[in-house]
Amino acid sequence: MKRRNFVKTAGLASAAGLLSACRSQTSTATDCGPGQAGGKHEWKMVTAWPRDFPALGTGANRLAERIGQMSGGRLTVKVYGGNELVPPLEVFDAVESGTAQMGHGASYYWKGKVPAAQYFAGVPFGLNAQEMNGWFYYGGGLELWREVYRPHGVIPYPIGNSGVQMGGWFNKEILSVDDLKGLKMRIPGLGGEVLARAGGTPQNIPVAEIFTALQTGTIDATEWIGPFNDQAAGFNQAAQYYYYPGWHEPGTALEVLINQAALEQLPQDLQHIVQYACQASNLDMLSEFTARNGESLQQLREAGVDIRPFPDEVLQELQRISLEVLEDMTSNDELSARVYASFKAFFGKVRGWNEIGEKVILNMR
Amino acid sequence: MKRRNFVKTAGLASAAGLLSACRSQTSTATDCGPGQAGGKHEWKMVTAWPRDFPALGTGANRLAERIGQMSGGRLTVKVYGGNELVPPLEVFDAVESGTAQMGHGASYYWKGKVPAAQYFAGVPFGLNAQEMNGWFYYGGGLELWREVYRPHGVIPYPIGNSGVQMGGWFNKEILSVDDLKGLKMRIPGLGGEVLARAGGTPQNIPVAEIFTALQTGTIDATEWIGPFNDQAAGFNQAAQYYYYPGWHEPGTALEVLINQAALEQLPQDLQHIVQYACQASNLDMLSEFTARNGESLQQLREAGVDIRPFPDEVLQELQRISLEVLEDMTSNDELSARVYASFKAFFGKVRGWNEIGEKVILNMR
Repeated sequence: MKRRNFVKTAGLASAAGLLSACRSQTSTATDCGPGQAGGKHEWKMVTAWPRDFPALGTGANRLAERIGQMSGGRLTVKVYGGNELVPPLEVFDAVESGTAQMGHGASYYWKGKVPAAQYFAGVPFGLNAQEMNGWFYYGGGLELWREVYRPHGVIPYPIGNSGVQMGGWFNKEILSVDDLKGLKMRIPGLGGEVLARAGGTPQNIPVAEIFTALQTGTIDATEWIGPFNDQAAGFNQAAQYYYYPGWHEPGTALEVLINQAALEQLPQDLQHIVQYACQASNLDMLSEFTARNGESLQQLREAGVDIRPFPDEVLQELQRISLEVLEDMTSNDELSARVYASFKAFFGKVRGWNEIGEKVILNMR
Repeated sequence: MKRRNFVKTAGLASAAGLLSACRSQTSTATDCGPGQAGGKHEWKMVTAWPRDFPALGTGANRLAERIGQMSGGRLTVKVYGGNELVPPLEVFDAVESGTAQMGHGASYYWKGKVPAAQYFAGVPFGLNAQEMNGWFYYGGGLELWREVYRPHGVIPYPIGNSGVQMGGWFNKEILSVDDLKGLKMRIPGLGGEVLARAGGTPQNIPVAEIFTALQTGTIDATEWIGPFNDQAAGFNQAAQYYYYPGWHEPGTALEVLINQAALEQLPQDLQHIVQYACQASNLDMLSEFTARNGESLQQLREAGVDIRPFPDEVLQELQRISLEVLEDMTSNDELSARVYASFKAFFGKVRGWNEIGEKVILNMR
């Protein structure tokens, strides 16, 4: 079966699945097709994180709650943790097939299936969180993202951004570029490609398995997010050194995926509620990361964690390789090339602005 | 009449005003009190900006549109530019009295009436946009802001943030601290207090009057926002030098004000729609500023505008005075002291985090 036919069939199957999930709220409303404002809709949201995981899982819970509140209960969303309905790294497939109407994850998880997807999570040494949102909403980024997912019948929304991440937890000291050679590290997306070219062995494993892999020496190092989540995951119990900065993820955007056919079944007002609930939650989650990372870093310092910067030499080499990897990767894929070209053009302008704004202020404080 | 009684009376008047604005949407809905989901509500939003002013006015328009879309037209908001219904600097009073149910402005405009209000717009050399939102939503800032406005029957929402601003447009060169003495400058809020102590003469005049004041020499300098808005206002036609950074406004939060009695008249789902529409628009406006400032700065550079940094000596002196002013001002007002204490505690933690995150990345790019 060709992809295009498969997508059409999947879309129809999904719409049928949605209709069967409708409940009549009043005696006169017998279905919940477009315009039937009285109908009641029940959605499932699958996520790439453990249930109630700090900031990620709880952020997804709050998004679901907001949709329920704004719709007066006409659209309810049930949240599933990773592995409850589908495995964490099968969220995209589940939304594409209509198993769930909604998913919460990060676009670089699907790079094997949709290579151009990963740029929407961020680029090493690239845009920070505020700039990513500028690119999405006012720089053409979100339109491109929608175009990339359209053949799959899936609509993306940026929702949540970790801000700058940490470099990761290491059981090997990184004193020079040579120490990256042979390094087995959990690091997904473009950062992983860069590490591979620097001689390391990148891996992508779900968060629930990282701690054990680190403790047993299956991996030498892992990046995860920032102080708040890393503390919650207990990585300081399994690694010796906590390196900064998160060169590979200077402002990682998370995403909500929505099955297009399911969305189009909703009346217009509920479609708008979903859209703006996502935008509100985008800021909500970034704000939680910003606040809690500050608190957790202080606690990790007080607990005596060995927090250290990567040597300048290492960062410079990683930056050099990053640019090389980005140019190489985009030259093989037309869609990736267009996405990266848009990203670069936006980056050039916004960096010029931040050079005389944000950066000057941060350096003075 | 004592303030408390006045507030109560105003609240009742406002509620009555709201009820009279209700329209029945169906033949069975005769009013629009709480729980009457079928009722139709018409609100007014007064703003402190000219109608359709870039980013500020258009952002307010988009907020109104979103509320209409999400409510399926059950709550419509009509937006008024400054001076259309009330003058720009009387937005707070208009919402307090119930003349309008909603207002869009910036909290430092009301410092004469509510001294503690201005910290919620930002503090010189203080939090940036992302950190402000962290403080509001996850650091106790928004709770304090609500407490500060509660005696006035007005509920604040952070909506829109300019990001770091520019230092302003000058017709006098600033080569040393001495050049600040006698400087007549449009600069509101805490930045104005700092300039006064440095020997200057701060003024707060609405945007529509700034250009003429600058051109005629009534003022020597003005700050306004950043490249996007400053370009739209045409200040490069009235001043010689464009200085950076915006030391006085490192991440200015704008605000929506809502008349509490009017809000409480809405059914629960519409109250939630207003709340999350505001949060979505908060990110929407910041994203527009971020994207457009990058573009406009490039255009201003190409047009040959003389863009220059304040001398280090001047910035260091302004920073020293800022801390002094903040300590002095808060010592005279219990509420200001509590707000500033919360701000400072949050700042300490989040700055520690950004020192090894955001700042390191910005300095490498």
